[in-house]
Amino acid sequence: MGFERKRIAEMHGYVPGKQPASADTLKLNTNENPYPPAPEVLSALTAIAPDALRRYPPPSADGLRARAAHVHGVASENVVAVNGGDELLRLALTTFVEPGAPIGVVEPSYSLYPVLAQVHGSDVVRADAPADFSLPSGLAAQMARAGVQLLLIVNPHAPSGQLASARELDALAASFPGVLLIDEAYVDFVDPELGHDLVPLIAKHENVLLLRTFSKGYSLAGLRVGYGLGASSLIAPMLWKTRDSYNLDAIAQRLAEAALVRRDYSAETWRKVRAERARVSAALRALGYRVPASQTNFVLAEVPAGRDAAALQRELEAGGILVRYFAAPRLDRSLRITIGTPEQNDRLLAALAGCRS
Amino acid sequence: MGFERKRIAEMHGYVPGKQPASADTLKLNTNENPYPPAPEVLSALTAIAPDALRRYPPPSADGLRARAAHVHGVASENVVAVNGGDELLRLALTTFVEPGAPIGVVEPSYSLYPVLAQVHGSDVVRADAPADFSLPSGLAAQMARAGVQLLLIVNPHAPSGQLASARELDALAASFPGVLLIDEAYVDFVDPELGHDLVPLIAKHENVLLLRTFSKGYSLAGLRVGYGLGASSLIAPMLWKTRDSYNLDAIAQRLAEAALVRRDYSAETWRKVRAERARVSAALRALGYRVPASQTNFVLAEVPAGRDAAALQRELEAGGILVRYFAAPRLDRSLRITIGTPEQNDRLLAALAGCRS
Repeated sequence: MGFERKRIAEMHGYVPGKQPASADTLKLNTNENPYPPAPEVLSALTAIAPDALRRYPPPSADGLRARAAHVHGVASENVVAVNGGDELLRLALTTFVEPGAPIGVVEPSYSLYPVLAQVHGSDVVRADAPADFSLPSGLAAQMARAGVQLLLIVNPHAPSGQLASARELDALAASFPGVLLIDEAYVDFVDPELGHDLVPLIAKHENVLLLRTFSKGYSLAGLRVGYGLGASSLIAPMLWKTRDSYNLDAIAQRLAEAALVRRDYSAETWRKVRAERARVSAALRALGYRVPASQTNFVLAEVPAGRDAAALQRELEAGGILVRYFAAPRLDRSLRITIGTPEQNDRLLAALAGCRS
Repeated sequence: MGFERKRIAEMHGYVPGKQPASADTLKLNTNENPYPPAPEVLSALTAIAPDALRRYPPPSADGLRARAAHVHGVASENVVAVNGGDELLRLALTTFVEPGAPIGVVEPSYSLYPVLAQVHGSDVVRADAPADFSLPSGLAAQMARAGVQLLLIVNPHAPSGQLASARELDALAASFPGVLLIDEAYVDFVDPELGHDLVPLIAKHENVLLLRTFSKGYSLAGLRVGYGLGASSLIAPMLWKTRDSYNLDAIAQRLAEAALVRRDYSAETWRKVRAERARVSAALRALGYRVPASQTNFVLAEVPAGRDAAALQRELEAGGILVRYFAAPRLDRSLRITIGTPEQNDRLLAALAGCRS
């Protein structure tokens, strides 16, 4: 058995989406932004001085936190900067969940949540999402009854792309007694006409923790940067106690800050992705797929009757196109397809039209 | 009280060494290498393509792990790459220590260890180092008796700079029933004539985990990269289960790999630091300080009788020179001084000669 803890020995690790070896591979499987980061991010990279590498980075990422606070109209004390959104998820368990106490998730959602629970020593209380992947009714009461100390909601929802409104989440926060972490990994791709904004919730509810990431919206998945937004009482223990003392490197801090300064550049990529999302969804429907409207940079496409999603995924991969297939209840007839550039989407659609699986 | 766990609410966070605002400040307080990273590291930085930022990084850092394995003559499965050495320390607790079970440390040592224990929910069993800061006798038996599942040893020792030999640590690993983590943050600065090498221990003892970092030896503290070396059975659960799934960003992976390729460049900085370490130690002794021989890139200098170490630290800081003072038993008459370039060390020595505290 070796030296690891019993529940570590028994668990299975998280399996990240495949990283292709070939440059020709079309990668529509891990929801990266198809457009490069802002030119100013690349200039910030080339401007990194040797001393920024040689010296320890600013330990609490003050510059980046101040910039994020400015973007959202909050204070720096409402922001903790993290080494990718995954770190905030882990920190939330570490900080707010007694080992042995359960966490809550909606099924289906991000498959990393139960893995983190297993590592922490928490059981997982699951609430099934309705057929349309909206929030389950009675969610707060079910979770409170089960003694859940941390409820993890991904919104817009993954892998369906459905958006729960600020009003719904406001009500959920008010009626759930523990910490409500809303994983907004894909929020940048929400249609701005909806006026969706959860940030006001952190002033209203001391238990709301919002997760933001640079991986998708800002085309910086390679950098590993995100941040949490919440009441200062919620942020402080992560910022000053449970976070690794130098969790974010100097380059990541500077480039993420530069990305926020040129937020308008990224916003233009979000607009392009939304336009393509509409086009790809319509084209998939024309091919017989069932595609719920998505507010993210991916769509969950249910394959036409008689087709096999797993086989289709393999057939696409054989043709150099990666999409994500989940061998899980309610998802095993679907493919999760990241929205690419128009040319990439054309290639995908042409391939799908010719697939035999 | 808020939402944090009881023991998080009660604990104090780790306090990192001060980061100066002014470029004129001489920073001899956090043990950075005074020389810049290798030119090839800087070229690797400017060669980073936008796609390396846009896409998720290699999740298990295969290139970097293979290179580190090559350097040490082990296999990739013996290596886990981490976001700074601090992450490996945390992972060791997460992976090998049941919440509630104690960890063991030698006092004094790295002040982060008890903080990590507090976050994890572990008590700390302390063994006092002898006056010369060598390994305490009967250490394995004391720790085993107390039920310690993870013993943390920093070697060469911080903050004294003392080196325990491979023979001593071999015996300790053989007689301690839990995981023995040897934090080799400063090992690059050990005099090569000693032929000190602990890597053979990982083939001999399944419970030995070595921690290496790029922060000091490779002048890359700003990057946050380190790695662990151990038996594959010890490494695997951290590599595949407890580590954040993308813990190390793409830039850090490439630059650290480049640093290992140009290890000879860094080795030359180690030689210069050793030469200066000898000169600074002798000069401090001539000023009346007691300075034990150090195998690191810092010295622990006990102030002359009648002088006040805390006041001296403040007086130096007022003059633009940062050194580290620990308000702790056995350390509160000493300053920990990082070895700088010859010019920096001259400035320090001149300042000390003129200090009145």
